[in-house]
Amino acid sequence: MSRDICIFQDFLTEDYRAQIQRTAREAGFVPHFFTESQFEEARACLQHCEVLYAQSPALLRTAPKTLKWYCASSAGVDVYCQNDGIFANPDCLLSNSNSYGVTIAEHVVMVTLMLLRRMPEYAAPLMQHQWPAPMPIRSIRDSGITILGAGDIGGNVARRMRGMGAGKITGISRSGRAREDVYDEMHPISDLDALLPKAQILVMALPGTAETAGILSRERIALLPRDAVVVHVGRGTAIDQPALVEALNAGRIAGAALDVMMPEPLPADDPLWTAKNVVLTPHTSGNLTLGHTCQTNVDMFCEDLVNYAAGRKLVHLVDRARGY
Amino acid sequence: MSRDICIFQDFLTEDYRAQIQRTAREAGFVPHFFTESQFEEARACLQHCEVLYAQSPALLRTAPKTLKWYCASSAGVDVYCQNDGIFANPDCLLSNSNSYGVTIAEHVVMVTLMLLRRMPEYAAPLMQHQWPAPMPIRSIRDSGITILGAGDIGGNVARRMRGMGAGKITGISRSGRAREDVYDEMHPISDLDALLPKAQILVMALPGTAETAGILSRERIALLPRDAVVVHVGRGTAIDQPALVEALNAGRIAGAALDVMMPEPLPADDPLWTAKNVVLTPHTSGNLTLGHTCQTNVDMFCEDLVNYAAGRKLVHLVDRARGY
Repeated sequence: MSRDICIFQDFLTEDYRAQIQRTAREAGFVPHFFTESQFEEARACLQHCEVLYAQSPALLRTAPKTLKWYCASSAGVDVYCQNDGIFANPDCLLSNSNSYGVTIAEHVVMVTLMLLRRMPEYAAPLMQHQWPAPMPIRSIRDSGITILGAGDIGGNVARRMRGMGAGKITGISRSGRAREDVYDEMHPISDLDALLPKAQILVMALPGTAETAGILSRERIALLPRDAVVVHVGRGTAIDQPALVEALNAGRIAGAALDVMMPEPLPADDPLWTAKNVVLTPHTSGNLTLGHTCQTNVDMFCEDLVNYAAGRKLVHLVDRARGY
Repeated sequence: MSRDICIFQDFLTEDYRAQIQRTAREAGFVPHFFTESQFEEARACLQHCEVLYAQSPALLRTAPKTLKWYCASSAGVDVYCQNDGIFANPDCLLSNSNSYGVTIAEHVVMVTLMLLRRMPEYAAPLMQHQWPAPMPIRSIRDSGITILGAGDIGGNVARRMRGMGAGKITGISRSGRAREDVYDEMHPISDLDALLPKAQILVMALPGTAETAGILSRERIALLPRDAVVVHVGRGTAIDQPALVEALNAGRIAGAALDVMMPEPLPADDPLWTAKNVVLTPHTSGNLTLGHTCQTNVDMFCEDLVNYAAGRKLVHLVDRARGY
């Protein structure tokens, strides 16, 4: 009997499929490819598969107890760690794909500059084909950067901010340790309240877990300095969004760029749309929309497929209890 | 009789004035400060000054033959090099202030990312509070960058693009030499036609001279690849603007970000406003709007004031015949 892999992805070009075919064959597996319009076909196939490579909670919920490894092509895995019976097999391995650091970091640099250079304020007159006068602006050069979440995304952001001549780069993580040595200072999350009053540029790149929900609370938003800009690329749940809108509209902070929010899609009448000095993007900072991201995603799956076949620990294994 | 300096600037804080006062006194000069609303007072004072620090062709035109040095606080000096009698003293020294490299380079990184990440296309639905689906995007990482103009701005752009993980960085200058060793390849401008077909990201940062007027002609726009994005921060005269608008609207190139254009301000009915995949900014990439720019500008003037007083050559001297 063959050992089968169900692959349910829209982004796989012929080259990526060939790479997966080759890796699977050498590892003793047979891959079955489905696009996301083929849900029923994928579900039927999944019943005799031991591995699933997808980004679909709905499909995962249809998996049998014999599924042994679910490789999520996303970085965030909060939806898979709710302990709500989404896995029929309680011991099913979960891995994620941290292939989004580059694209998210480029997004972060872009929107940070848009805020510092006051693009939201220029946008309104430019829309009317008017020619606004220059306003005082700020630079990444010499600005302090505080990065909440010192993983793959945080590291990619830190390196690029360094290249832009940033001032002190401070990383914050649960443990106070960083994945990469690219920060001027590392702090545990227990230092957060002490660090926020000096956070001119606050980048939030935390996974969505019970601990990070609401972490930028109303009280903590009040600790931010008047010139703070907040760039958020983690999970919408991390910020007290009504409090943030109030702070923006009152000018108590200088701006915010949100790529994630609550809920998504954001309803057309949500006050966030019209908040002052805000840059909103529709959860586009990290998708399978960049060649580099797609290639890395496939490489990570193939790397762990070899590990899985050899009975070794997965490099990209997620602790389902911890949530990342 | 005192040796007098007329200073006609709006951006000088008390600290900057004190720095200039101190430098002038030590060099044996007396500075006279005017804001730009004090044109008549400045004009009257200028009649007995040998140095003028300003960014005002109108004021310069009122200067006597005894003016010996005009320090322009701008980087571009095309308006001062027309040989149209703007200098009463034909031997008056002209210097410029290349203090804009940092702010213009941050602008270039921002708008390059906005084009590669398709922000102009996302803007329309977001304006309507809609939630557009993700589209394929590109990254600075691994992209080739072609920089036309290898001076202060070009060098600052190149270093930042390097920090973003860019692919090959090609510099082009009149001589084929660069101000800084930050390019993978340097070419003389005579190679331009050969380089354009591979220019995925073309950054134009040339001074406005007779030689650079119309340099990105209709014929050269036709040489650009389909995925080319053009970022322009030099002078509006450098591009055949109607041809660029045609190329954008026909999808023959991928996008353009213009901070300079013809004319400025751009008339409300100009077709450039509504061209496809365009990011327009109202000549805000390099102004005296960033603390670093202002400080560097004052430092450069003070540095050359010391040189001038000592009879040494000015570091920031412009060749009035060459135009830069």
